Amino acid sequence: MPARTHGRPRDSRTHAAILSATVALIVDAGYGALTIVGVAARAGVGKDAIYRRWSGKPELVYEAVFTSADADPIPDTGTLIGDVTILVERLVDEFAAPAAAVALPGLLADFADQPALRMRIREDLLAGVKARLVEVFDRAAARGELVADVPVELILDSLAGTVLFHVGLVGAPVTPELPRHLAAMVVTGIKTR
Amino acid sequence: MPARTHGRPRDSRTHAAILSATVALIVDAGYGALTIVGVAARAGVGKDAIYRRWSGKPELVYEAVFTSADADPIPDTGTLIGDVTILVERLVDEFAAPAAAVALPGLLADFADQPALRMRIREDLLAGVKARLVEVFDRAAARGELVADVPVELILDSLAGTVLFHVGLVGAPVTPELPRHLAAMVVTGIKTR
Repeated sequence: MPARTHGRPRDSRTHAAILSATVALIVDAGYGALTIVGVAARAGVGKDAIYRRWSGKPELVYEAVFTSADADPIPDTGTLIGDVTILVERLVDEFAAPAAAVALPGLLADFADQPALRMRIREDLLAGVKARLVEVFDRAAARGELVADVPVELILDSLAGTVLFHVGLVGAPVTPELPRHLAAMVVTGIKTR
Repeated sequence: MPARTHGRPRDSRTHAAILSATVALIVDAGYGALTIVGVAARAGVGKDAIYRRWSGKPELVYEAVFTSADADPIPDTGTLIGDVTILVERLVDEFAAPAAAVALPGLLADFADQPALRMRIREDLLAGVKARLVEVFDRAAARGELVADVPVELILDSLAGTVLFHVGLVGAPVTPELPRHLAAMVVTGIKTR
C-alpha cells in the first residue's frame, strides 16, 4: 500500500512530462518529424514508459494536443445564440492552439486508416462539446426558444467541421467575429422570409 | 505548326492516362504508398512526363481526385433550400468518391505546410461551388426569399467543412438525408421563435 501511494504522484508526473514533451516537439518540428524515441529523450524517460501508456504516436499526440474542453463549465448566457457562440469560441481555441493546429492534418491522416481511432474524434474529442450542446438546447427549449427537435449530431459536425476546415485545413485567419457569425448561422439560418 | 497540332491530342491522352493511373493506384494502395515512379509505370510514361506537368505528388493527386464539380450546371429548383440541397449532394459525391475519400486525409496533411497549396483548396476546389452558391443566392434574393446579405464565404466553409468532417474525417456513413438536412440547417437554422 505505501509503495502504491508513493508511486502515483511519480507516475502522474511522468505522464505529464511525456505529454508536455510531445507538445513541445510538435510545436518545434511538426507532427511528421515527431518520434516516440524523440519524445522519450525530451521527457527524460525510457520509450517503454511511453509504450506502456499509449499504443503509438497518433494516440499519444491526440491526448497531448486535445486536453482542455471537458474542464470548461457549460455556458449559460440566457440566449441560445450566446451559448452556442461560447461553445464555438472554445472549438476555435482548441483547434487553433499551436500544437493542435500543427498536428491536426498529420494526425487525421494517420487516423484515416484506423476506424477505431477515427471514432475517438467524435466519441471522445467531441463528446464534451456534445454534452454541452445538449444542455444548451434543453435550456433553450425550456425558455421556449426552440420550436422543433434539434439535430444535435449534425450541428456538432457542422460546428466542428467548419472550424476545422476554416482554421485547421484552409488555414484561414480566425477573426473575432467567426464564432458569433457561425453561431448565428446555425441558430437562425440565412435570413429568409 | 502541323507538329503542334498533332502533338496536342497525344499530350492530352498522356495527361489523362497519368490522372487515371493516379486514381487507380490511390484506390488500390492508398495515398501514402503512391509514388510518382509507380504512377509513371502504371500509366506507361516516363516520370519526366509527370514532372513536366505537376510539381509533385500532392499537386498530381489533387488534380486527379477533384475533377468534376465545374462541369455541373447551376441548380434552379425554384427554392433556395432545393438549390442548396443539390449543391451539398455534389459536395458529398465529390468528397465521398473512392479515390477522394482515400486520398483526402493524407493530401491535407501534405498540404498543411504549404500555404500556396492550402489556398488552392479554397480558391480552386471550392471556387466552382462558390460561384454556384452566389448565383443561387442571387436568384433567392430576386424571388424575395432573402432578407439580409448572405455570408457566402462562411456558408461555403460550413458546407464544405461539415461534409469533409462527416464523410472524410470521422468516416460517418452518408445517409440520403444528409444533404437536405444540412441545407435546411444553413437556410433556416435551428427552428427558433
